[in-house]
Amino acid sequence: MDTLNHFNQQGEAHMVDVGDKSVTHRVAVSVGRIEMLSNTLEHIKQGTNKKGDVLGIARIAGIMGAKKTADLVPLCHPLALTKVGVDLEIQDEPPAVLCTATVETRGQTGVEMEALTAVQVTLLTIYDMCKAVDKGMRIEGVQVIEKKGGKSGDWKVAS
Amino acid sequence: MDTLNHFNQQGEAHMVDVGDKSVTHRVAVSVGRIEMLSNTLEHIKQGTNKKGDVLGIARIAGIMGAKKTADLVPLCHPLALTKVGVDLEIQDEPPAVLCTATVETRGQTGVEMEALTAVQVTLLTIYDMCKAVDKGMRIEGVQVIEKKGGKSGDWKVAS
Amino acid sequence: MDTLNHFNQQGEAHMVDVGDKSVTHRVAVSVGRIEMLSNTLEHIKQGTNKKGDVLGIARIAGIMGAKKTADLVPLCHPLALTKVGVDLEIQDEPPAVLCTATVETRGQTGVEMEALTAVQVTLLTIYDMCKAVDKGMRIEGVQVIEKKGGKSGDWKVAS
Amino acid sequence: MDTLNHFNQQGEAHMVDVGDKSVTHRVAVSVGRIEMLSNTLEHIKQGTNKKGDVLGIARIAGIMGAKKTADLVPLCHPLALTKVGVDLEIQDEPPAVLCTATVETRGQTGVEMEALTAVQVTLLTIYDMCKAVDKGMRIEGVQVIEKKGGKSGDWKVAS
Amino acid sequence: MDTLNHFNQQGEAHMVDVGDKSVTHRVAVSVGRIEMLSNTLEHIKQGTNKKGDVLGIARIAGIMGAKKTADLVPLCHPLALTKVGVDLEIQDEPPAVLCTATVETRGQTGVEMEALTAVQVTLLTIYDMCKAVDKGMRIEGVQVIEKKGGKSGDWKVAS
Amino acid sequence: MDTLNHFNQQGEAHMVDVGDKSVTHRVAVSVGRIEMLSNTLEHIKQGTNKKGDVLGIARIAGIMGAKKTADLVPLCHPLALTKVGVDLEIQDEPPAVLCTATVETRGQTGVEMEALTAVQVTLLTIYDMCKAVDKGMRIEGVQVIEKKGGKSGDWKVAS
Repeated sequence: MDTLNHFNQQGEAHMVDVGDKSVTHRVAVSVGRIEMLSNTLEHIKQGTNKKGDVLGIARIAGIMGAKKTADLVPLCHPLALTKVGVDLEIQDEPPAVLCTATVETRGQTGVEMEALTAVQVTLLTIYDMCKAVDKGMRIEGVQVIEKKGGKSGDWKVAS
Repeated sequence: MDTLNHFNQQGEAHMVDVGDKSVTHRVAVSVGRIEMLSNTLEHIKQGTNKKGDVLGIARIAGIMGAKKTADLVPLCHPLALTKVGVDLEIQDEPPAVLCTATVETRGQTGVEMEALTAVQVTLLTIYDMCKAVDKGMRIEGVQVIEKKGGKSGDWKVAS
Repeated sequence: MDTLNHFNQQGEAHMVDVGDKSVTHRVAVSVGRIEMLSNTLEHIKQGTNKKGDVLGIARIAGIMGAKKTADLVPLCHPLALTKVGVDLEIQDEPPAVLCTATVETRGQTGVEMEALTAVQVTLLTIYDMCKAVDKGMRIEGVQVIEKKGGKSGDWKVAS
Repeated sequence: MDTLNHFNQQGEAHMVDVGDKSVTHRVAVSVGRIEMLSNTLEHIKQGTNKKGDVLGIARIAGIMGAKKTADLVPLCHPLALTKVGVDLEIQDEPPAVLCTATVETRGQTGVEMEALTAVQVTLLTIYDMCKAVDKGMRIEGVQVIEKKGGKSGDWKVAS
Repeated sequence: MDTLNHFNQQGEAHMVDVGDKSVTHRVAVSVGRIEMLSNTLEHIKQGTNKKGDVLGIARIAGIMGAKKTADLVPLCHPLALTKVGVDLEIQDEPPAVLCTATVETRGQTGVEMEALTAVQVTLLTIYDMCKAVDKGMRIEGVQVIEKKGGKSGDWKVAS
Repeated sequence: MDTLNHFNQQGEAHMVDVGDKSVTHRVAVSVGRIEMLSNTLEHIKQGTNKKGDVLGIARIAGIMGAKKTADLVPLCHPLALTKVGVDLEIQDEPPAVLCTATVETRGQTGVEMEALTAVQVTLLTIYDMCKAVDKGMRIEGVQVIEKKGGKSGDWKVAS
């Protein structure tokens, strides 16, 4: 399709009709990272092992965030998610935390927005918990990298 | 301060006590952008003028998102925001929409998280409305660029 | 049925059991209007064309409102809506904005409440955005006009 | 003021800055009614006395609805309400339930939207609980009738 | 199963995949009670009959609470509940209100959490409405007593 | 005071007027515990150290739950909390996890409900994460133990 389907013929926004789409197993995977000072990353690494588990809390926030997607994104359909997973990985050069979110449903519409929201809320929470030591952190590279199911079929980001 | 203040001595997370902080006028400005195919940007430009107002809807979503920050970010204090503004600007090379969010309050804690959340939800909404024509859009450069008020005083990102 | 089915034999409220109802295509259409000074309507008309898009924002609020129905109405079942559309029309005599909301689902219970909530939140948002120039606006004639699907079958308001 | 203040010079929507407004005692009173078949009103009357308390439930829904106003109305400021009251009165000719909501705060912005939302959610809930016996109910005459506090001072609807 | 299934092999929390589980009729029943001074119970009894219906309001809060379970419990799946019922019973010795919540769905995962949340919110609301006369009330014995449907089959608490 | 102040003279529920109460520093402390099989407690203990951090997740859920109190409890005032802390302690005989929540604000009304809600949501989350191995867990002894600030002054539960 080559048009923005959230608008009708008059250019007015609506929540598009998905009632005739088939219920299929749908998966979406999104990624993103938050770049920071190496000293900040050191705080996070120490926390994971012995106190102040920044990554554990951010992961929970991201999972809960995925469930709020239809509340945040105006024309997004509410969906009963069947799986949400958030993986976090530490990267040393440049210092950053990488986030990968995988969301699944059996439904009539895809879950890309839920996977993106999970990444965004996870990274926001890392910012919140580290901002006392590093206000200059930057969130970069938030994108969908893979999508399965639905009429448009499987898709992977070009690498 | 040099430690992650969302943890107590035992390394357990808590919502930090801001009750003794003074009520001051606080401002935070955040930015971010979503990069896309030039064809996608063309759809957005047309929409703004004549139908399908992607940017107008995204702006509203971002403002509403700012109000949900304490719902999304676990250790964030609920705040009565006094102002939220979201500005969007089209950039042609590379094709992108730039978002700047300004949030203000009179309160005991800063509004950086609210400004970041406004940017994130605005950009998520642009993704949602354009994903039928471009799944490969990327959100980049989400960061706080300025902050005023509070004990730590004014701050600007190093340029 | 001739009784208020949200109460059991003891007169205690409950969320009625819809688990045995069949999953059918359900549609509901609701309408309502907000009456205002002709000067206020003039502001709205100008905005739609060149700045300050009151109707575009109200439409988005109404769509998002439909998704919150089960949060607002105590005994309403949560539903995965498959379509929400909100149409707005300007009426000159008396000066008013007319709102029509259409909601669809494939589910075990109807979507009248969602269609009514969409109308109510749309009209509330128009009030909010125009109250600086006209506090006396009135919301009138909010009702369901049509309903399809479900055991009780199709229904239209008597005209 | 004679312009719609939710828009800036470029006609873009924002949540207006109330940070410089003074904190005053603010009150708003809204009304509205739901008209119905006399048989439906009879059901409600019986319920209030002996089982199935439609009005008691609707009143609670309206109070809770007032607290959700800033979630529903995009450019509404979040407010710490200090009082919410919802009164319901039965009217026989034409058969209807009349709702009056009074909301108060000590804050920098008015509570008209909260009072209107309380009325809307109260009446929606009555519709929900009676729709099994009367789909044709109509919500009429929802408006602010009185407002106190703030820079614009006291205001009453013209009678 | 003998492990905590909300964690993956690395011990990281996720929302478990229920996409392959079959859609069955699922029921859960939970109970709990709030113990109080006999004078407080007297206030509640009077209210039920003639004014101030504490139990009616608490029942509504519990039903609405069940709908918010996936918002409150981080790894809980969002579910379309088909029935929620909350029963309240007065017990004189020791003075207490007993709450029983029954929740049903047709879905891929159980509703124990929804039934527990309904009980908790019901009892919290009773506390709120009576705390002006009795701050020492205690919530006791909140547990699932019965569960039907799903792969693990029917279960009853050992008596 | 000797009456249930959430009702007016007619016995109708309302959110009581706190607008004339003074803004004071208010603190509430609540406790509660969840009793379980010793084998279940063993799972939790192992998780805290090496994988699957049940208590860390439950603590976050409790803190977020405190922020949702006014959404859950119908007549509760929305409040800007200045501190929320949740402490968890393992008790071996009988096997249980004890939860203590401390909530603070500077406001016109107390925070007992927020402290109770934090305990309830914390314990619900522990139930959720351990129910695969132990459906018979019981939540016991949820109560306010201390309260400071406000007109009624300081209060401690009788021991």
